[in-house]
Amino acid sequence: MAAARGPVTGGRMRAFVARSMAAAGLTAQDAALVAARMADAELQGSDGHGLIRLPQYVRRIRAGGINARAQPRIVQERGATALLDGDNGMGQLVVSRALDIACDKARSHGIGCVGTRTSNHAGPASLYVREAVERGFVALYFAVGNANHLPPWGGLDLLLSTNPIAIGMPAGREEPVVLDMATTVAAYGKVKARVQRGEPLPEGWMVDRQGRPLTDPARIAEGLLLPIGGYKGYGLALMIGLLAGTLNGAAMGRTVVDFNEDHVTVTNTGQTLLVIDPSAFGDPAALGQRVDDVVGQMRGSARLPGFERIWLPGEQSHERRRRHALHGVPLPDALHKRLDVLADELAVERM
Amino acid sequence: MAAARGPVTGGRMRAFVARSMAAAGLTAQDAALVAARMADAELQGSDGHGLIRLPQYVRRIRAGGINARAQPRIVQERGATALLDGDNGMGQLVVSRALDIACDKARSHGIGCVGTRTSNHAGPASLYVREAVERGFVALYFAVGNANHLPPWGGLDLLLSTNPIAIGMPAGREEPVVLDMATTVAAYGKVKARVQRGEPLPEGWMVDRQGRPLTDPARIAEGLLLPIGGYKGYGLALMIGLLAGTLNGAAMGRTVVDFNEDHVTVTNTGQTLLVIDPSAFGDPAALGQRVDDVVGQMRGSARLPGFERIWLPGEQSHERRRRHALHGVPLPDALHKRLDVLADELAVERM
Repeated sequence: MAAARGPVTGGRMRAFVARSMAAAGLTAQDAALVAARMADAELQGSDGHGLIRLPQYVRRIRAGGINARAQPRIVQERGATALLDGDNGMGQLVVSRALDIACDKARSHGIGCVGTRTSNHAGPASLYVREAVERGFVALYFAVGNANHLPPWGGLDLLLSTNPIAIGMPAGREEPVVLDMATTVAAYGKVKARVQRGEPLPEGWMVDRQGRPLTDPARIAEGLLLPIGGYKGYGLALMIGLLAGTLNGAAMGRTVVDFNEDHVTVTNTGQTLLVIDPSAFGDPAALGQRVDDVVGQMRGSARLPGFERIWLPGEQSHERRRRHALHGVPLPDALHKRLDVLADELAVERM
Repeated sequence: MAAARGPVTGGRMRAFVARSMAAAGLTAQDAALVAARMADAELQGSDGHGLIRLPQYVRRIRAGGINARAQPRIVQERGATALLDGDNGMGQLVVSRALDIACDKARSHGIGCVGTRTSNHAGPASLYVREAVERGFVALYFAVGNANHLPPWGGLDLLLSTNPIAIGMPAGREEPVVLDMATTVAAYGKVKARVQRGEPLPEGWMVDRQGRPLTDPARIAEGLLLPIGGYKGYGLALMIGLLAGTLNGAAMGRTVVDFNEDHVTVTNTGQTLLVIDPSAFGDPAALGQRVDDVVGQMRGSARLPGFERIWLPGEQSHERRRRHALHGVPLPDALHKRLDVLADELAVERM
């Protein structure tokens, strides 16, 4: 057995994803953008949305389930809104395009709202919100997840995904505050990670079909995820799905395709991105100071026993990003091996 | 002791609130609008935001803490956005004005986003979202609550309110789907209602300053509310506060005034309202059918043992509205008595 490989830099990850995606049929420019997003996911610690997805994306492209040469286009437009048809392209490309349009509209109208349909899985919601924040905007993002593991409150049918919401706010001297959360207690990726390690699930993540806590990792196929706050999280997941899916003519409810199981059917994924120009609400520098002040208040709060510090939303991702930029990302050996197999299949240089 | 009085119609509530508000100094037109919003809150069962608030509002107006003759004005404007200074008027008036502006902007630009500052408590978030939905729009609403009962996750300092989020989506034949939720497991009004009845709190609503469950209704002053989903609900409450308060130059964190304790200090309440014209994203009739379809899927789900039906967000409020429109609202005797005292103080006819 080969010795564990060392950490991988962002540059190496980007180069590898770019050549894999190009080999799968994307243009060099599109491949580079997907690679940048996927490496960013890995660098911020969103490993469930990072390189682990690459073999799945390639399989889908090769099976015809994703259009490698998609040309997203605006199908409807108003001054501050657009509906973007993703042409079934890679989600990272479609949402990046939506982001550019929303930022342009926010610059000219104070806010921009862009919805997508026939998009695909785009990685962590926080990527796009952070990008908007780095450009100086406030941003909100809603997405329909790509597999239903959540029933309505009191129900058994898996009609909802862990539909995420992300909200980002620029700060002054502080790092921007960026929330990215699934509407379930645990994202399904976290459940799968436990299963892979053979560890029991904490009580409160899943229940069985009688509503009893389900903690046995061997039984997750019969489990239902629990929404945060009970009926509240159900309501939030539903509304996010209506905003990001139904409003845009994208999949929601029974029409959601489980892209972990099905590599062919068009997912018709929907996302909705709202970008606000803070200068439409006052001086951005003064806003930055106010956000810094709120951040300082939270961080400076007296603490409950057992808590060593108070975190701000996005702060742990930021620390990982800084650490990974210095030292690279230590990828699991199993992932390295899967990516080697993929490289050989695509006849590209291994990472 | 007088016999329990019968249920009160919406019309009687509106007339009583209107004459009380006019006696407190509002113009007849403003008094009528506040009265309509407060009666609507009562009719939909939001009794914590209904007539129970009237004595408090009047006390604040008389103490100079609310400006009875406020003239809200737009202080900054872009094509699709506005910042509205509420002139420290009644929140119901300020947010109603914000709603009108946001709807106008959505009509012309596809979306409208209006932030408020120097506003006040405006009652249930769902009122404004429902109104926008009844006008044919999709709407989102964020508000900073008027008393801090929530610490940051892991903290002890009460720096956050139960900051609500409301989202509304028009349907076709179905009732609109309207979510209105506090970001804590229990809204503080629900806690207070238990205390008034001397009932213990369910575990999971509050913890004490050692992080242990607090269920004794006599001890809530030392309690911390728990956010939904632990750190997630903290993050959501924080981001809502940044969007509705900090962005607009309104109170957030330590600057939030507890309007239950302090009747004089200007609260500088902030709200942010987003209104989307669904016709900017396709045919509204087709959207209505898609929403109906999703509603039907949720409602038709197989159920967990012990659940008699699946509810949609806003559906229980709608049923109460229908019932109360037919039969009136049975107000508690204690509330009737407080309103009688108020009527006598203001020298207006009792309800």
